[in-house]
Amino acid sequence: MSGRSALFADAYQLTTMYTFLRSGHADRPAVFDLFIRQNPFGNGYTVLAGLEQAIEHLTELRFTRQDEEYIRSLGLFADEAFFRALRDLRFTGTVMAMPEGTVAFPHEPLARIQARLLEGQLIETALLATIGHQTLIATKAHRIVRAAGGKPVLEFGARRAHGGEAAMNGARAAIIAGCAATSNLEAGMVYGLPVTGTHPHSMVMVYGEDLPAFQEYCRNFPDNAVLLVDTFDTLRSGVPSAIRAFDELVGRLGRKPKRYGVRIDSGDLAYLAKGARRMLDAAGHPEAIIALSSDLDEHVILALRDQGAPFDVLGVGTRLITANDQPALGDVYKLGAVWEDGDWRDRIKVSANPDKITIPGVKQVTRLYQPESGLATADLISRAGEVLPDGPFPIFDPVRPYLRKWVTAQGSTDLLVPVIADGQPVYRPPSIPEVQANLAANLARIPEEVRRFSNPHVYHVDLSQHLWEARQRLMQENPPD
Amino acid sequence: MSGRSALFADAYQLTTMYTFLRSGHADRPAVFDLFIRQNPFGNGYTVLAGLEQAIEHLTELRFTRQDEEYIRSLGLFADEAFFRALRDLRFTGTVMAMPEGTVAFPHEPLARIQARLLEGQLIETALLATIGHQTLIATKAHRIVRAAGGKPVLEFGARRAHGGEAAMNGARAAIIAGCAATSNLEAGMVYGLPVTGTHPHSMVMVYGEDLPAFQEYCRNFPDNAVLLVDTFDTLRSGVPSAIRAFDELVGRLGRKPKRYGVRIDSGDLAYLAKGARRMLDAAGHPEAIIALSSDLDEHVILALRDQGAPFDVLGVGTRLITANDQPALGDVYKLGAVWEDGDWRDRIKVSANPDKITIPGVKQVTRLYQPESGLATADLISRAGEVLPDGPFPIFDPVRPYLRKWVTAQGSTDLLVPVIADGQPVYRPPSIPEVQANLAANLARIPEEVRRFSNPHVYHVDLSQHLWEARQRLMQENPPD
Repeated sequence: MSGRSALFADAYQLTTMYTFLRSGHADRPAVFDLFIRQNPFGNGYTVLAGLEQAIEHLTELRFTRQDEEYIRSLGLFADEAFFRALRDLRFTGTVMAMPEGTVAFPHEPLARIQARLLEGQLIETALLATIGHQTLIATKAHRIVRAAGGKPVLEFGARRAHGGEAAMNGARAAIIAGCAATSNLEAGMVYGLPVTGTHPHSMVMVYGEDLPAFQEYCRNFPDNAVLLVDTFDTLRSGVPSAIRAFDELVGRLGRKPKRYGVRIDSGDLAYLAKGARRMLDAAGHPEAIIALSSDLDEHVILALRDQGAPFDVLGVGTRLITANDQPALGDVYKLGAVWEDGDWRDRIKVSANPDKITIPGVKQVTRLYQPESGLATADLISRAGEVLPDGPFPIFDPVRPYLRKWVTAQGSTDLLVPVIADGQPVYRPPSIPEVQANLAANLARIPEEVRRFSNPHVYHVDLSQHLWEARQRLMQENPPD
Repeated sequence: MSGRSALFADAYQLTTMYTFLRSGHADRPAVFDLFIRQNPFGNGYTVLAGLEQAIEHLTELRFTRQDEEYIRSLGLFADEAFFRALRDLRFTGTVMAMPEGTVAFPHEPLARIQARLLEGQLIETALLATIGHQTLIATKAHRIVRAAGGKPVLEFGARRAHGGEAAMNGARAAIIAGCAATSNLEAGMVYGLPVTGTHPHSMVMVYGEDLPAFQEYCRNFPDNAVLLVDTFDTLRSGVPSAIRAFDELVGRLGRKPKRYGVRIDSGDLAYLAKGARRMLDAAGHPEAIIALSSDLDEHVILALRDQGAPFDVLGVGTRLITANDQPALGDVYKLGAVWEDGDWRDRIKVSANPDKITIPGVKQVTRLYQPESGLATADLISRAGEVLPDGPFPIFDPVRPYLRKWVTAQGSTDLLVPVIADGQPVYRPPSIPEVQANLAANLARIPEEVRRFSNPHVYHVDLSQHLWEARQRLMQENPPD
């Protein structure tokens, strides 16, 4: 369902692939890592999403005849062998990745791609955008859901998303992160997500006043009558008209509706919600819910709770679906090793900024737990296949080597699992509820101080001694500026 | 090419459509306006884009059998007449819109949709997202291009976009706004945009050092040899290796390459660019260009120019393609009038916030010019078909009525043009160069103080006396909170 072309790629992927092909490197195996350098939004961790769509992109990858004609038309590539290679290109590599819903941290590989250079290079752009977008939105939505303190959060952002695909995949990420439903019908159909909706101002405006619109809506949706009360005047017209429509509805049904209430979408939400609550209660409708929306995010929601605003449901749009305060995850895709003379050779990218020096090698990520509490104590990046000691052993902070930590591998979990082997999918994509369960299971083992909403404790992501020493050697060979 | 389903819509569109159908309003003609409430990024105006994709969505609009089954599965709709109406639904309305590349302002209709309520309601979400996204990116890219002061800006953001569709349509908007090329191959193919690219760090990392990678690249792209010099150490390894590769290339060609140079993608760009320029010049390569990239936006670019950083090309990614500092345009879609008893009846949405009170009626937008300078002096919102006086006449600020302005209609231009009439496209979508030309022609008539980069003068968007009085009457009937 990714549905995008093999040309969802930057032009420099082709020039580089051409250079590899012409110099005999095209088929050389290489390992690339996809990772982030920081958690978004000042959060203490990152919630992964988008892997399923990334896998679909890889397993469906091929250049059409039209793509080939287009590439020819660029006039950059003279060697027919290149076009043959593009025509035959399929993704034949092996991918290890963290499942969706995993709680992840900076610098650790979120996915490890082992493939011919020709393939591994091509897929960079699409993988970064696919996983980066959904992971960004999932992490933002997770913060908003947490701020709501158990009250359901509805994803209402489709109209403010960066187009329909962003709306649809953003809704998927929001539900993974704990939103109760989305307003987005396409996302509901394609991904099987719960959908929800009330009615817009325009419905009231057609009638020209609140009451007849509310009456009509209640007649048609008697057991889901949530009425938007702020078209004209929330407390003087909207809520009184809603109460009258509810009274009539109760009279007709001979009982209270299963679900009914009001939505407030503008103005001072705390003030209006308190007024509406008082009026609904006084009119004998304590069961009527109050839904709030209007430029909400985690900060506004915490402020509403702080002011004691009564609400039962929150609708969150723009600031969730665009990850308003940081609209890009900034994930990167870097070469870790290339195959040479029968073995993997480490590769590093150095930088004057220590945070931007890559971690070389073919790597696994292992979550280590404290034996007593069962809580995660650090993520260990080691060489794939490296045997961890039975007893306690030291691990090394890659940037601040004076920070070393003693840990044990008892009960540890390898986070990168096989998803594609030699081009074949070897992974049953979990259902959305399974992804939600994975997130919950991950979170349950993350220490409270790392889960703190503001200024969280920095979780350890450290290297094995073996990998740390190898990295030090490579850095000495290539000292940064 | 919008390619999205009719279900690219919020669930509340369906519940509202159902309510309209059940109460006999489904076929009633209505007029909706799409508009913004403020210019993004503190800019003095907004650059329109995305209309072509919006028109495609409307003219291709239909519910498939699968869509219908999905809607049934929601269990919300009991009346079979609703499913019949969905099955038969096509967009049969009339759309007037400002062409792409138009310089537009808050509160004026950017598009006016006249359609049966059933249709006009359904399309809200898709129209807002389609036009909102491209207009946002076009306006951001326009600011970045302006900051670059005539040096070409390349759009490099595909990997940081909110998925592949956002990358592709964002690239389109960026080129409309004046970017010289995009790295996005899919956008290049689908929209016929110029594409460009050099090579990534990974190419150098495969070779393990700069020089052999640069030599190989120069052999394959002798007349487009722009080398990325910051993989290891920009000034001690990257630039010297590039110079050696250039010298060898010049030796082989017997002349200078048509286009060659270095790209710097990290570190202190101003410092490194100055160093690279000195070294290239000293080595006899004054023609070699310097391309800079790395988290650029209009503010960083102005700072680089202020510091005298030498550069010839800029690559801009994340902050352009996500409109980093304001990732949503916040466009809205509001009912202006409904047909009743043989005439249009004005509709208004009031609010305690004067900026959120809508402008009722079926409207046209006319750009008025100063007779002497030929510069735009105000945009007038009047009733469609309203005859403007021959001589000077007053126009009214909708929010601050004490601000009234005397203008003439000589040489004025109606900005809303027909694009769909009774469901049929009546508009030849302009080519990208034509859209660029429209933007240039628009800008040429916008006063300098409105074009100012920071703290621009607020351009007048005023109402005709007739419309202003009608709005006052409606507000008195529906006083805000």
